[in-house]
Amino acid sequence: MTTYSNSRTVRIEWGDCDPAGIIFYPRYFEIFDASTALLFEAALGMTKLQMLQNLEFGGFPLVRTRARFLMPTRFGDDVTVESKIAFGRSSFDVEHRLSLKSETCVECSEKRVWVVRDTNGRIKSHPVPEAVLAKFRG
Amino acid sequence: MTTYSNSRTVRIEWGDCDPAGIIFYPRYFEIFDASTALLFEAALGMTKLQMLQNLEFGGFPLVRTRARFLMPTRFGDDVTVESKIAFGRSSFDVEHRLSLKSETCVECSEKRVWVVRDTNGRIKSHPVPEAVLAKFRG
Amino acid sequence: MTTYSNSRTVRIEWGDCDPAGIIFYPRYFEIFDASTALLFEAALGMTKLQMLQNLEFGGFPLVRTRARFLMPTRFGDDVTVESKIAFGRSSFDVEHRLSLKSETCVECSEKRVWVVRDTNGRIKSHPVPEAVLAKFRG
Amino acid sequence: MTTYSNSRTVRIEWGDCDPAGIIFYPRYFEIFDASTALLFEAALGMTKLQMLQNLEFGGFPLVRTRARFLMPTRFGDDVTVESKIAFGRSSFDVEHRLSLKSETCVECSEKRVWVVRDTNGRIKSHPVPEAVLAKFRG
Repeated sequence: MTTYSNSRTVRIEWGDCDPAGIIFYPRYFEIFDASTALLFEAALGMTKLQMLQNLEFGGFPLVRTRARFLMPTRFGDDVTVESKIAFGRSSFDVEHRLSLKSETCVECSEKRVWVVRDTNGRIKSHPVPEAVLAKFRG
Repeated sequence: MTTYSNSRTVRIEWGDCDPAGIIFYPRYFEIFDASTALLFEAALGMTKLQMLQNLEFGGFPLVRTRARFLMPTRFGDDVTVESKIAFGRSSFDVEHRLSLKSETCVECSEKRVWVVRDTNGRIKSHPVPEAVLAKFRG
Repeated sequence: MTTYSNSRTVRIEWGDCDPAGIIFYPRYFEIFDASTALLFEAALGMTKLQMLQNLEFGGFPLVRTRARFLMPTRFGDDVTVESKIAFGRSSFDVEHRLSLKSETCVECSEKRVWVVRDTNGRIKSHPVPEAVLAKFRG
Repeated sequence: MTTYSNSRTVRIEWGDCDPAGIIFYPRYFEIFDASTALLFEAALGMTKLQMLQNLEFGGFPLVRTRARFLMPTRFGDDVTVESKIAFGRSSFDVEHRLSLKSETCVECSEKRVWVVRDTNGRIKSHPVPEAVLAKFRG
């Protein structure tokens, strides 16, 4: 297993929040989705778009996600998102921890599969390319 | 000029609203975008996906939109969206009127162009097909 | 334990989908959030807004969600969302099953707590009111 | 008239884009809304939340927006958003220019009103406080 982690700061925006004044929770998954993409961008030095163009890669669809919401966040909060990836053969797991002033607000665990497109354009599972793993190993 | 209109009811959801308790205005444009797609679905008897597969059609990107916000809407509101389309040669205009209990809340006017994809996959402007116009004429 | 279920049809919109042509998964949680609110609206005969105004109720924040994604959905799909609620003392669980032509696409399990606001406006956990449970019992 | 401008970089995310591979245009308005809030944050040294708590301020609802879409943007694009504000008495105008590598992609012009809440919690139009204008004057 190869692991790699990343951290970034995200501003919770007015439009992310609901009439209770706290974040509308589906917005967290938008944040986590972008954090996972950034893990690859940081390791590979290319955006997800460039990955699609240059790698044996057709996406990494989510197969499972689990999240616990411990403390709400509000607009104007600058939260920290730490993301840690661990690779299996043709899948990988990402653990996200979203915190405000070091206090954990959300924990999320997602499982994704690496897919490629066959000649008919259909997606199918595929081992994560060795070239990708090598980049993560650094 | 050929005109055609449509009307539908949309529920303003909790997650569409912001900490002021009113709709976050970008959500209106999501509603209007879907209303425009439904105009074509109603007239042509096919979804936008089927249009992409079966017509000389690569989308109808927005080139201009204008909206006036006269009265806020809130979650739980069941608003009416009336949409009226008028065709030019290779573009069309849609007027949306969003109302609550007959009172106008938002007026929006959008201009879109009909595009097709050339052999390189690039989009380019194209006259609205006569077959499409005929369906709207009914 | 009191259970109650509901079913509705949701159109997957163009703007819900990503460049892979399938739904962007955070949109599922917007759908599930609205489905949970509709469970209460169907049982109580009042919207979530009216609940906030008329009941001992300050919201039902999510504490945990788990979802499995079995099959992607695409724009134009009219999916069915079946939601089933089971009450504990001051919390409840909702199981959502989103399907297309009877085939399960997503399974989601969420846990929420019933909260009220104290005199300082802070939210705190509270037993689900007997009047609410009675309505679900029918 | 007092003017002030701001500039920031925004990443167009995967989830902002639609099946045509380009941004879903309502996302632009989410970006512009946040840019307007940031204008005030930069000038006043407080977030919109702090403004609500500390100023004679109940929000700045949008009354009108107009946008022209000149060139699409795609996920992975790091776009520049330049925003320029001009104050009237109890309203203000913001011009947003969103560009990619110096080429203008979207131009947006919005008009908002400054509102306060009366003793019944209702919002009403109010002159922009002199203390706010003074901060913008610098």
